[in-house]
Amino acid sequence: MALTYFSGLDSSVGAIGDDAVGANARRWSVDRIVPVVGAGLAAVSYISVSEGACREAGVPGTVGPAWVLRGATSYKRYTESVEQAMLDAVQPALGRPEAGRAALLPITTSTAWWELPQDARRAIFEETSHHIAVGLEYLPAVARQLCHGRDLGEPFDFLTWFEFAPSDESRFDQLLARLRTSREWEYVEREIEIRLTREPEVERLPLANR
Amino acid sequence: MALTYFSGLDSSVGAIGDDAVGANARRWSVDRIVPVVGAGLAAVSYISVSEGACREAGVPGTVGPAWVLRGATSYKRYTESVEQAMLDAVQPALGRPEAGRAALLPITTSTAWWELPQDARRAIFEETSHHIAVGLEYLPAVARQLCHGRDLGEPFDFLTWFEFAPSDESRFDQLLARLRTSREWEYVEREIEIRLTREPEVERLPLANR
Repeated sequence: MALTYFSGLDSSVGAIGDDAVGANARRWSVDRIVPVVGAGLAAVSYISVSEGACREAGVPGTVGPAWVLRGATSYKRYTESVEQAMLDAVQPALGRPEAGRAALLPITTSTAWWELPQDARRAIFEETSHHIAVGLEYLPAVARQLCHGRDLGEPFDFLTWFEFAPSDESRFDQLLARLRTSREWEYVEREIEIRLTREPEVERLPLANR
Repeated sequence: MALTYFSGLDSSVGAIGDDAVGANARRWSVDRIVPVVGAGLAAVSYISVSEGACREAGVPGTVGPAWVLRGATSYKRYTESVEQAMLDAVQPALGRPEAGRAALLPITTSTAWWELPQDARRAIFEETSHHIAVGLEYLPAVARQLCHGRDLGEPFDFLTWFEFAPSDESRFDQLLARLRTSREWEYVEREIEIRLTREPEVERLPLANR
């Protein structure tokens, strides 16, 4: 179990010394933030993705993040053995050099969803909405990571993260459009779409040396 | 989603002003703490159970808790529709006047458990270990609450809580013995058994008035 932090930043430079943007943070510039269902998020220019222990955001004298979303990379609640074997055979890792585009979709589902028994949720997820089967059609083009925020008391139940090459962006758009018309998506009560382009790697100096 | 705090206290009186022991806390005296598998927990005389937002433990001038365990009362990951209907028909609420005994069993399962696909975990949980079916035999005698700590980064994946009348304690012992011999329990790598008796209700005054 690890926590992943997605920090929305107004400036690429000012926040490098911030605790929420560690030395190992991956930096992405924001192409657009679109509120899909429900309330949006404040506009930012950059998003920093980092892993680690719970930290307080903000260091005096630096520009802190406009917002920080947290999620736990937890175990899988619906994937069955045969599906896992198919996924394992084709799903790519995060951080591929060619995957210069990303999407972060924070999503919250309704109380009605969480009150459904496991078999009813699974049936909507896969047997009706074909979440895994549809997703498999877009592998290995799209790398994915799911983080869970609900048990942490976060505003978003899920932080869904996708990485792909610029040449695969239209395929990702198609995947997203198909999932959004599924029965599963009828339970979504808040969704934000954040589209991103990877920042070129720059040498990161400790703040004191800058 | 709510967080539940189980605070281990050395003194019944000194910690009432502590943030981790709110005005609505339920207080239980510890009959015994037994390390069942793996490392134990420091001996304490009382346990306070409270719900709420994340709080720091310890107030200067008061006796703080020896330890605080946190868990989220989350959704159910295995219970299916038919099982839920059977449970709903017979399961009692927490806090019954006659339920003067309780047990807190903090449990952590192995990485091997969490890496299993959902259908494999469900099969071990119910089709092999009959977790729900066995539990149903002990309803409505035993009231239960499950809190999840894994995604919070807590030392225990589960905080399992049970309340029953003193006259039903031997039945609870039998339930526990049956579950511990199940296949599911082979994945348990840390388990502590804390047995408790409810404290008589006392008037709680704000610390400043004591």
